[in-house]
Formats: sequence, structure tokens, C-alpha cells
Amino acid sequence: MLIGKVMGSVVATQKDEKLESLKFLVVQVHDHVNEPTAQYVVAADSVGAGLGDMVLYATGSSARQTTLTEGRPCDAVIMAIVDSWDLGGDNVYEKWA
Amino acid sequence: MLIGKVMGSVVATQKDEKLESLKFLVVQVHDHVNEPTAQYVVAADSVGAGLGDMVLYATGSSARQTTLTEGRPCDAVIMAIVDSWDLGGDNVYEKWA
Amino acid sequence: MLIGKVMGSVVATQKDEKLESLKFLVVQVHDHVNEPTAQYVVAADSVGAGLGDMVLYATGSSARQTTLTEGRPCDAVIMAIVDSWDLGGDNVYEKWA
Amino acid sequence: MLIGKVMGSVVATQKDEKLESLKFLVVQVHDHVNEPTAQYVVAADSVGAGLGDMVLYATGSSARQTTLTEGRPCDAVIMAIVDSWDLGGDNVYEKWA
Amino acid sequence: MLIGKVMGSVVATQKDEKLESLKFLVVQVHDHVNEPTAQYVVAADSVGAGLGDMVLYATGSSARQTTLTEGRPCDAVIMAIVDSWDLGGDNVYEKWA
Repeated sequence: MLIGKVMGSVVATQKDEKLESLKFLVVQVHDHVNEPTAQYVVAADSVGAGLGDMVLYATGSSARQTTLTEGRPCDAVIMAIVDSWDLGGDNVYEKWA
Repeated sequence: MLIGKVMGSVVATQKDEKLESLKFLVVQVHDHVNEPTAQYVVAADSVGAGLGDMVLYATGSSARQTTLTEGRPCDAVIMAIVDSWDLGGDNVYEKWA
Repeated sequence: MLIGKVMGSVVATQKDEKLESLKFLVVQVHDHVNEPTAQYVVAADSVGAGLGDMVLYATGSSARQTTLTEGRPCDAVIMAIVDSWDLGGDNVYEKWA
Repeated sequence: MLIGKVMGSVVATQKDEKLESLKFLVVQVHDHVNEPTAQYVVAADSVGAGLGDMVLYATGSSARQTTLTEGRPCDAVIMAIVDSWDLGGDNVYEKWA
Repeated sequence: MLIGKVMGSVVATQKDEKLESLKFLVVQVHDHVNEPTAQYVVAADSVGAGLGDMVLYATGSSARQTTLTEGRPCDAVIMAIVDSWDLGGDNVYEKWA
């Protein structure tokens, strides 16, 4: 998994029928010290993430292991909203700070 | 998933029998602010995408989850045509603009 | 999938028993305007590709979806020989030119 | 697999129900001569790794082959704590040195 | 698959129970003209490879298709020892030269 920040969403009406009702969010990947990188991913949302939330996302076949994404042509899923993380005992990010 | 633009198509008559009737499109990957990157992918088309369309594509085993690509040696599929996306509340791309 | 050019072959007699009779080709990856990149892959050949052929190859679990590669420890397969491709209506490559 | 160093942990209370009780650790990837790289991964812990431990992690569907991670939307797992490794007969890392 | 050179091995006693008896080797990735790259991988050995051997390794779910690695949390496997390869008709590497 990698950590990213929810930056926006994608609208697509013409799509494979198996994608109905999935919400696609644009996630900018952050590094482990919480700096944004140049990388992004469009991920299905399985946890009700909102704009600006820091999230964990999984890719590949693991992205189809949530109840929401099972059997669907979806290769990235937001499976958790990050509350906080630390490195070497120091807090890097705290949602409620 | 990543966002890309349909740039062309690939013709291949000598191919694995499981690939019959699949259409392969050349997709240039775009970044989240809609700038083209140096990366491309050849993806099977499951949604009737046309030249110039902005699309979402999935890779890996997830590319075999559409009805069209199931059980085929295909590692990338266009599974949606993008209508629009936004970042931080601002519209980045609008198909019908 | 990506497009590549068949550059050579690999000989390996000491190998996993499931690999018997697979032919491994060295494929140099090309970009979408047909320039060679620094990237290569060793792929199983499922279509009888020859030296100098432009091919499409698939990776990951999709590489095990041909009749030839099913159930084998093989993560890349040539599944088509490219006849031609175009970008924006202009021909980029034509096998029989 | 790649080798990494456990640098910290991620807390996430709002997550997919299948992730309950998994512990997520921040792992900085090291190269084969034990220099830290710019790459990191957030991996589920299946072996009780602690801060500062050098570990092996697996990604993709292989990350769901431990008893702990089976069937879960998790694409990276720490499956071993490294005791030591050598290159060309010379010891590179020794946990108990 | 990619070509690599066996550089060493990793010792890990505290590991997932499904990894018992697997041998993990450090493989430095080589490019198609046999120059070492900065990339490495730790791969399970299914063919009895030794220090200095040039090998083919497979990654992802394909790494679990050998009898040795089936069902194990292992994402890279050495599945062949390379005898030789050629590019454009010229020999690049020959084990017994």
C-alpha cells in the first residue's frame, strides 16, 4: 500500500457495466515524510473518503478484495482513511491536529 | 487506474486465438492535471472509445474482469470514457466543453 | 500491453520442469512512436515470432492466459505480431512497407 | 521480494471491514548493499516485526498468501525478519552484530 | 522475465510458516547487453542456482507457479539458469565460454 491524498473525482457515464455505482477518486501519492510526489492514481472508494483526506490504497488484484470491488475491472482501491502515522517515534501526520 | 488519451490503434492478424475480435488502442498516459506523459499503453477497448477520447484504463488481472476480456491474455483494458474530472474543486477536463 | 522488437533468444537447459518446450525471446521495448527504449523483457513466444518482428507482449498473470503458458511460471508472453499501428491517423509502423 | 527497514506505523480506524486487526508498518526500501532508497511501502505485518528491523516484504497477490492476509485488500506483506545477508561471500548485514 | 546474476543469499529464521525450506537469493538485474543495473530482487530459488550464475526470474503471481513456491507468500522466483543468449545473431553471454 501507499499513502495518498484525495484531490478530486472522475466522472464517467460510458463504462463497463460492472463499474456501476463505483466512485472514482483522484489520489496524489505522498512519500513517507508526507511530501506529495508527481505520481497519482485513480482509485475506487470503499470507505467514504472525502476531499483532502489522507488515505491508504491498494493496487492490483488486491484492489478487488473489498466487498465493493469484488469481480470488477478495478485495479486500485482506497481501503482506509489514515488517522496518523509516525516514523522513528515522531509523528508525521495527525488527522485531528 | 490511470487516465489516458486514445491516440491510435494497433493491427495484428497473427495472434493468440483467444485475442480474436479484441480491438487494441494506443493510449498515451496523462497526469492528473491533464498533461501528457512519456508513458503509453496498448489497451483492449471494452467501451467503444474513439480517437481523442480521454479514458480510464485498468491493468494486470483487473484488465480481465470485463465480459469482453475475461480469460484472455490481455493486461490492460479501457473500462470507461471520462466525461470530466476535478482537482480541489476546480474542473480539469470537461468532455463537452 | 506494450510494443517491442524481437532482438534475440535465451537458452536455458536447467529450469523448472513446467517450462519445458517454451521458447524465450529477448524483446526490446519500443515507445508509441517506435523509438527503442532502454527497457527489455524476456518473453515466452506463443505466436512464432521471428528476429526483427514488432510484437505485442502481456505481463503478469495475463501472460498465463495463452494455451501455451497456462499454469507455468512465466510472467511475460508475446501474444501478437504487429502488422501496423497509427497515431492520430498517421501510420507509424507498417510491417509490409 | 525486496529488503526494507521498519520505520514506523500507520493508524487507520475507518477502513474496509476485512482489514480489522492487521497492523500496517511503514517500510523504507533498502538496496542490496543496504543503502536506503527514496522508495517506501506500507505493508501488513505477519511476523511481529519491530522498529528498526530489516525485513523481507512481498507485494501483489503474493502478499495475500500468508494466513493473516488471505482474502484481504492488502498488496504488501512483511513475511520475514532478516537475520543477515551476504554479497559475493562478504557479509552486508548481520542483525546480531 | 528478466535476466539477473546471483550475488548472494538472505538468511531469515523468523518468517511466515509457509516459507519454510525456501532459499532466498539476492539477484542483481542485468540489462539485455549483460550490463548490471542498479536494480535487485530477492528471489526464491527453484533450480539450484549458485553464486555468479546468470538466471531468469519471474515475478508476481507467476512466481507461485513452480511446484516449490505454490501457495506461498513469495513474489519472485528463479525458474531457469541461463546457458546463453544472443542479440541480432551475436552471442552476448555464454556460460561455458
